[in-house]
Order: sequence, then C-alpha cells, then structure tokens
Amino acid sequence: MTSLDGVLAPILTPYGDDLAPDPVRFVALARWLMDQGLGLAPFGTTSEGNSLSVEEKMALLDALAEAGLDRGRMMPGTGCCALTDSVRLSAHAVARGCSGVLMLPPFYYKTVSEDGLFAAFSEVIQRVGDSRLRVYLYHFPQQSQIPIGHALIERLLAAYPGVVVGLKDSSGDLSNMVSLCRAFPGFKVFAGTERLILPVMRAGGAGCISANANIHGAAMLALVRGWRDAGAEAMQAGLEGFRAVMEGMPLIAALKAVTAIRTGDAGWRRVRPPLVGLPVDKEAELLARLKSVGVLF
Amino acid sequence: MTSLDGVLAPILTPYGDDLAPDPVRFVALARWLMDQGLGLAPFGTTSEGNSLSVEEKMALLDALAEAGLDRGRMMPGTGCCALTDSVRLSAHAVARGCSGVLMLPPFYYKTVSEDGLFAAFSEVIQRVGDSRLRVYLYHFPQQSQIPIGHALIERLLAAYPGVVVGLKDSSGDLSNMVSLCRAFPGFKVFAGTERLILPVMRAGGAGCISANANIHGAAMLALVRGWRDAGAEAMQAGLEGFRAVMEGMPLIAALKAVTAIRTGDAGWRRVRPPLVGLPVDKEAELLARLKSVGVLF
Repeated sequence: MTSLDGVLAPILTPYGDDLAPDPVRFVALARWLMDQGLGLAPFGTTSEGNSLSVEEKMALLDALAEAGLDRGRMMPGTGCCALTDSVRLSAHAVARGCSGVLMLPPFYYKTVSEDGLFAAFSEVIQRVGDSRLRVYLYHFPQQSQIPIGHALIERLLAAYPGVVVGLKDSSGDLSNMVSLCRAFPGFKVFAGTERLILPVMRAGGAGCISANANIHGAAMLALVRGWRDAGAEAMQAGLEGFRAVMEGMPLIAALKAVTAIRTGDAGWRRVRPPLVGLPVDKEAELLARLKSVGVLF
Repeated sequence: MTSLDGVLAPILTPYGDDLAPDPVRFVALARWLMDQGLGLAPFGTTSEGNSLSVEEKMALLDALAEAGLDRGRMMPGTGCCALTDSVRLSAHAVARGCSGVLMLPPFYYKTVSEDGLFAAFSEVIQRVGDSRLRVYLYHFPQQSQIPIGHALIERLLAAYPGVVVGLKDSSGDLSNMVSLCRAFPGFKVFAGTERLILPVMRAGGAGCISANANIHGAAMLALVRGWRDAGAEAMQAGLEGFRAVMEGMPLIAALKAVTAIRTGDAGWRRVRPPLVGLPVDKEAELLARLKSVGVLF
C-alpha cells in the first residue's frame, strides 16, 4: 500500500474570465477533495490537461505545493505529444514531491509501433533521470487512440523495475483490468471508472481514478477501503445508480456545473475550447437527477 | 494568386544525436526545397510538428528567418491542443512575417461540437489580434479525428472574412475538396496529396501540400503550374507512379531515409518517439523502388 492507493480525483481545472487557469479556485477544490481522503490526479482528461500549456500546468502544481497540500498523494498527468514537454513536466512533478506521474502516450500519431511507444516512455524516464520518479501508464484507447498492451507493459517493467509501477485503465474493459492484476503482481491497477471498483479491488487492484470523484469521491473511497465488507455489493450498486444519472451528459461541463452549484461560484462553469459549457436545460435536468439518487449540494 | 499558392513542403524536422531539433540541417533542407520554387509548411504532420515543444518550433522558425529565407512563402502549423500554445505559436509566426498559418483543431477530445471548434479557432484569432494573420484550416480526420466540416467553415468565413482564407485537405476525399472549391469561391483549397493535384486544380484549388514534396516537390509544382497544359494528364500519371512506390512505407521515416541518402548525412534518419526509423531492409527496398520510377538521388 502506497500513499497513492485509494481514490484519486482527476481534479477539474478552473478558469478566470480570460480562460487563464485560476490557482485560487484550484487550490480550494484540491483542499475540498483531499479533506475527503482523496488523492489528486491533476491534468488528466477530466482536468482538461491537454488544453493547458506546460507552463500553465507547472504553475498550477506550484500553487498546490505552495498551499502546503500533500504531494505525496498526487499523481499529475505529464504525458504530452512532445518528448521535451513530457520530460519537463515530469521532472517538475518529481521536483515538487509528487509520488507519481500519470503518463499518457504521445497521442498524435495513430498507428505507432510497440517499439515506438517503448522508446517514448523510455526516453522520458531516462531524461528525467531521477530515482524518485514513479510512472503510472495511462491506458485510454477511446481518447488517445493508443492502447497500452500487455507486451509493452512487460517490456517497461523489465527495463524500469520500481519506476514503472502502475496503470490507470480508462478503457472500461474489466477483463483487461483483471488480467493486468493477474499478469503483473504488485503492479498498481487503477480502475478508470467507479462502475468497476469492486471487481477490480477483488482482482487485486490499487483503487480508482474517476472523473466523478470530483463530485462524489467519498462514496468511491468508502468502497475502495471497504470492498471486503458485507455492504460492498450495496455500495457498488449505489455508485452504479449515481453513475447512471451522469450518463449522456457532457462529462467535464457537467462536473463543472455541479461544482459551480456546490460552491455558489458561477465561474466554475467555464471550460476551454474545444469543450463547451453545459446548456441551462441540461444543468437543470442533471440537478434533478442527482437529487433523485440522493447526491445533493 | 498569393505567394502561398503552389506547392508547400511540410518540411522534415532533423534532430541531433540528442534528439534536439537541428537548425543547421533544417535551414539546409528549407533552402533546397525553396530553391525548387516550393513554399514551406513547417510543423505539419510530416514535420513531426506535434512531437516538438512550442519553444522548439519557435526556435526553428527563428532559424529560417535568420537564414533570410522568404517567410512570405511559409505556412507553419500552429494548431496545438492547448489554446495558449496555439496563440503563442501563431503570434510568433505572424511576427516572423509568415504569410499564413496551418491550423489543426485541438485534437485530444474526440467528440467535440461545432460550437466548440468554432470557439477554438475564434479564440486563437482574437487573441493573436493581428490584422496580418491568415489562417488555413487543417482537415485531417484520419489523424486528428476531428473533421472540419462545411458548416464550420461557413461560420468562420462569416466571422473572420479575410482572416480564415483556406484549408489543407488531407482526407484523401476528392469529392470534399471539389465541393469546398465550389461552395467557397476564393477559399484556397490545398490538396493534401499529389495524387489529386490535377482534379483539385481543375476545380479551382490553390495547390498541394504533401509529405512527398520533401523529396519530389519539383514534379508536383510543374503540375500545379501546368495543369492546363497538354501534358498535364501524363504528369499526374507520373506522380501516381511515384506515389505508388511510397505506399506501405512508414512515410516520415522513409522520407528521412531518402533525405539521408540524398545528402549523405546519416543524421537525417533520426525520428522522435513514438516514431521509429526505417528498417535497413525497407530502406533498400524503397531505394530500389524509387530508382524504378526514375527518382534517384
């Protein structure tokens, strides 16, 4: 068990009215999430991480550090399309004391070889060149279009034992998560959805990193911690009911709208293009749905 | 007719043995291409543009400017995933005197709305805020997964007349290129492949931007200039024969291998991960194929 095991929230990125990242709102949400016992996975898909420049991400990480929040429970996303960007951001995360980084493969070229992907991760690890670096691979074929297969993981584990230590699986494919847990004992597998916490924990998983942890993370953490308990099936069913109400909503805009309502701060609704805000009628529908499953703000 | 009409080469990016971009080789290739009458489209897909940081791209553009090469014939790729990166790079291209920029849509999120894409381009244009900016849209659905449809183009042309002025169509879909030429008179449509130069020029296109211009651009330019001539069909057939020999080759690695052979400089073979170099047997096969169609170095 490391300090990252459990539930990590891919924390939303707030913007000012000029669409610049807002460190004050960011730190406030980080604190609210961490006070619930959650870790943070900043700059993931839900964080609009790829819609931020490297400098903007470094500055937001600095804001978390300067606020005194525990970087031992942070796994920022640092995988960019450009090798030099991934190196710079990963090195900064390590320097800031983050316990791990969540690394998306370079995602522009779509038909890349396993050798090419191995080289991509390998170059970043070698160039960061810091024994404190811990890499979690980010498998999200629907979004990145670049799956991270078992053969690649095997090569990375052999080449960088103790450095490449885990994976977030956002494929939604339970059989892949279970087979990863079985194939690589000790490798930390995080379910990318709360829908699969129970089966993944039973298979030996490390926890969950899910967009919805931004608004409902405490319930996820209860299941990750209590998966052996009698009430586990009911907790999983409760999370599925919650998840169902989010279906069909543009996820990031919806989570920001809920955060705006919770905090009473309309500024939370802002997204960066190419995303768009949640339409007013959708927001009303979402709120009604959340109340129907007892998730209220 | 503007200074960008004709054939633009998406110029290859050379690296030193540390995989840092090499401005000396870059300027040498730029000069060789421009001496053939070609313009340049740096930082495109073929240029590994998304494998370079913003700073690396700005420095390479500076190198072209400092070498005194004509930026009036340059259309660098400036569309990044992050709004702030696209703005910074586009503003730099304008400041350096480039006649246009080739703008990929933000390409991480895959199911974005037309409103979101409109906002993405719109924000860049407004933030650059320079009357000299000329935007060419980059339609490459196979790679970016984000098509740029007619309705979006219509909105952009209405909002930014004289600023949004053209498009590179790398879809390979001739019917789309022809219908763009017909729907938007005066809009500069560049075929993304030499295979379609003749029909696109007949439909009113502005020229061609093709990877293969890095090694065979003069023949493309001859057809773009001479498409009304008696020999045009034969020139197009010749380009198709050339193109056929490149089929099945990993394109960027193959073009770099050919450039290494032409220049006698093995350093040209380097690619950045996630790409990999051309295997030796493939290189021998490619060379034999190129000789068979009379393209020799």
